[in-house]
Amino acid sequence: MKKFFVLLLFFSSYSVDLFSQQALWGGNNIVSPEIHDDNRVTFRLHAPNADEVQLSGDWIPSEGWMPGTENLELKDDGVWEFTTGVLPSDLYTYFFLVDGVRVLDPANVHVVRDVSNLFNMVLIEGGQGDYYKVRDVPHGTVSRHWYYSPGLEKNRRLTIYTPQGYEESSQHYPVFYLLHGMGGDEEAWISLGRTAQILDNLIAAGEAEPMIVVMPNGNVHQQAAPGQSAVGFYQPTMRLPQTMDGEMEQTFPDIIRFTESTFRVKTGKESRAIAGLSMGGFHSLHISRYHENMFDYVGLFSPAIMPNENVTSPVYDDFEQSLNQQNENGYELYWIAIGEDDFLMDAVEEYRDRLDRIQMPYEYMETEGGHTWKNWQQYMTEFVPRLFK
Amino acid sequence: MKKFFVLLLFFSSYSVDLFSQQALWGGNNIVSPEIHDDNRVTFRLHAPNADEVQLSGDWIPSEGWMPGTENLELKDDGVWEFTTGVLPSDLYTYFFLVDGVRVLDPANVHVVRDVSNLFNMVLIEGGQGDYYKVRDVPHGTVSRHWYYSPGLEKNRRLTIYTPQGYEESSQHYPVFYLLHGMGGDEEAWISLGRTAQILDNLIAAGEAEPMIVVMPNGNVHQQAAPGQSAVGFYQPTMRLPQTMDGEMEQTFPDIIRFTESTFRVKTGKESRAIAGLSMGGFHSLHISRYHENMFDYVGLFSPAIMPNENVTSPVYDDFEQSLNQQNENGYELYWIAIGEDDFLMDAVEEYRDRLDRIQMPYEYMETEGGHTWKNWQQYMTEFVPRLFK
Repeated sequence: MKKFFVLLLFFSSYSVDLFSQQALWGGNNIVSPEIHDDNRVTFRLHAPNADEVQLSGDWIPSEGWMPGTENLELKDDGVWEFTTGVLPSDLYTYFFLVDGVRVLDPANVHVVRDVSNLFNMVLIEGGQGDYYKVRDVPHGTVSRHWYYSPGLEKNRRLTIYTPQGYEESSQHYPVFYLLHGMGGDEEAWISLGRTAQILDNLIAAGEAEPMIVVMPNGNVHQQAAPGQSAVGFYQPTMRLPQTMDGEMEQTFPDIIRFTESTFRVKTGKESRAIAGLSMGGFHSLHISRYHENMFDYVGLFSPAIMPNENVTSPVYDDFEQSLNQQNENGYELYWIAIGEDDFLMDAVEEYRDRLDRIQMPYEYMETEGGHTWKNWQQYMTEFVPRLFK
Repeated sequence: MKKFFVLLLFFSSYSVDLFSQQALWGGNNIVSPEIHDDNRVTFRLHAPNADEVQLSGDWIPSEGWMPGTENLELKDDGVWEFTTGVLPSDLYTYFFLVDGVRVLDPANVHVVRDVSNLFNMVLIEGGQGDYYKVRDVPHGTVSRHWYYSPGLEKNRRLTIYTPQGYEESSQHYPVFYLLHGMGGDEEAWISLGRTAQILDNLIAAGEAEPMIVVMPNGNVHQQAAPGQSAVGFYQPTMRLPQTMDGEMEQTFPDIIRFTESTFRVKTGKESRAIAGLSMGGFHSLHISRYHENMFDYVGLFSPAIMPNENVTSPVYDDFEQSLNQQNENGYELYWIAIGEDDFLMDAVEEYRDRLDRIQMPYEYMETEGGHTWKNWQQYMTEFVPRLFK
């Protein structure tokens, strides 16, 4: 028996060994980010041989599309450091630039992918950020399912959130279909969008009805997110074919049929909502108009409005007529939100004029900022509490 | 109407703009890794200001615990490059070291976390690697569920794989409980372990029975993987309390009760398998012995054998008596596998001697290499086809 213990002491020392070696390896002895009590944040990177270390963060102002950068300062022992001002409660993303090379923080494994780039995450509590945090509340189930789309003749992948209690109850739930933007896929809303956390927190607070959220892949030529289909580990791109050519709208009933035959859901129009961001807002606009009696709740988050002029599809014919029909059929909520600096603002204003002209009721929310996940996360916390009430 | 099109042209040009800017940002115009027809692989990184760029890869031999490194060579335009020899079909992980700073490949978003470090993945097809690839076969569903453990008085998270067809059929399935190692959590087997791909591929080939795989969190003091509980975005560590103190073994029936009351499963001993790697092998050994009539299939992958000598728990009393009882109760398969260079080899040899001494039947497999995910992935492809037949 004694020999077993000796061997296990070896096992214990193994993990210590591995730990200290990993420290050399992954920078485990560096604390970064360090969130201070007053919500300033210190970022650190061990890079003794670097000439310049910068921090790119989505809260740092900039002139163009890219987030701004701050310069880190070299401190003792080869550690570079930068401390922000006080950050409002929110979920932020960042990365380092070490002599121009994009580097994820080795002291922070919490990363998220936005199309073809990975970012580290840091969450500041005490306000809006609390919606995005995993809190000590009942948690729903998040699943990745495959379904067959007869319209696209493909097996395709989607993400589904079912609220806590779904498995134990015999209740039927309403369904919220939630669509991603250009370059996104069925992973976007559950990762960048923090959908599970937002729903868990809103439902636990009694601010939202328990509901199922279906997050499909809106790129009709794709079966699944990069790396999740037989295509293999390819690098994602914004440039996908067939993203706004009518096929997503036409074949959307395949997703509804799968959902309604697989999950315990309520199946009336009054129990269906659809929303999306950017291209997903475009899809939501046209799906809800083309299938003009399918949804009682429509959300357009920073939406694109019209297809490219070389696109021909029956979906985009009779635009105004189908809007009028949707209006006549009636709905509970048609909700549009956009950031004041969004490059799609003019298109959205023109669309609102059109809705006013045909007397189609909608609600409108304008926020700060532009075409950003911060806005789309916030729109979720505004839109979801309005559903199915 | 014309104005809409003009706006949408702006929208189109936006994505082009963003794409080219992302190229500057994320290195999208660099192809890395590039897998050649003969299974050599070229790695590339744009780092014009670097003095030294190295590649760390888990196929590169080394003296110690860490994978070896190769030096990249500076080519034109600030791009560093290295081409491997021919790599056998498998799933490999790697990262760069740029002047000593750990850098993930910006041209490859396919990353995986091992405890506190992120790695890029590259998959070489045409052999063993084909088990780990998403292939054009029917796909099961992967879910993250929360359950309540009365024994641990905690809500806890686990990962579940249900085979393709589960949702549509009324069939009951056998269950395979699959446990992670030290520093791991309920994400380890589904990400690093490629469990969903292995099961999809084995089931589609008719090599394995359709089954449910339950991947719990074996760290009893944790509710969930780092970032997935109310603790927030903390940095993972190998050093967790209470990992091998008997509590996991004692409270394991909570996980079985949850599974058997939530999913359509067969509930006899003949329909339960348990296996795990390293600490999870330890847990599997002791769970199957302590609850000595619960599993017909037991798999110990590079297992630790005995607890630290300062641990006291009723689980580890009457060790040999309970093994004898397990033996007497009978089982279909007791399967042990380990790499020839594994630091746990002596402990496993001693344990096999003990099993021989008490005439407890088992099967044994020895592979090349050490305490690695390559071995554990391979053991899955060997063990799973043996279950429930």
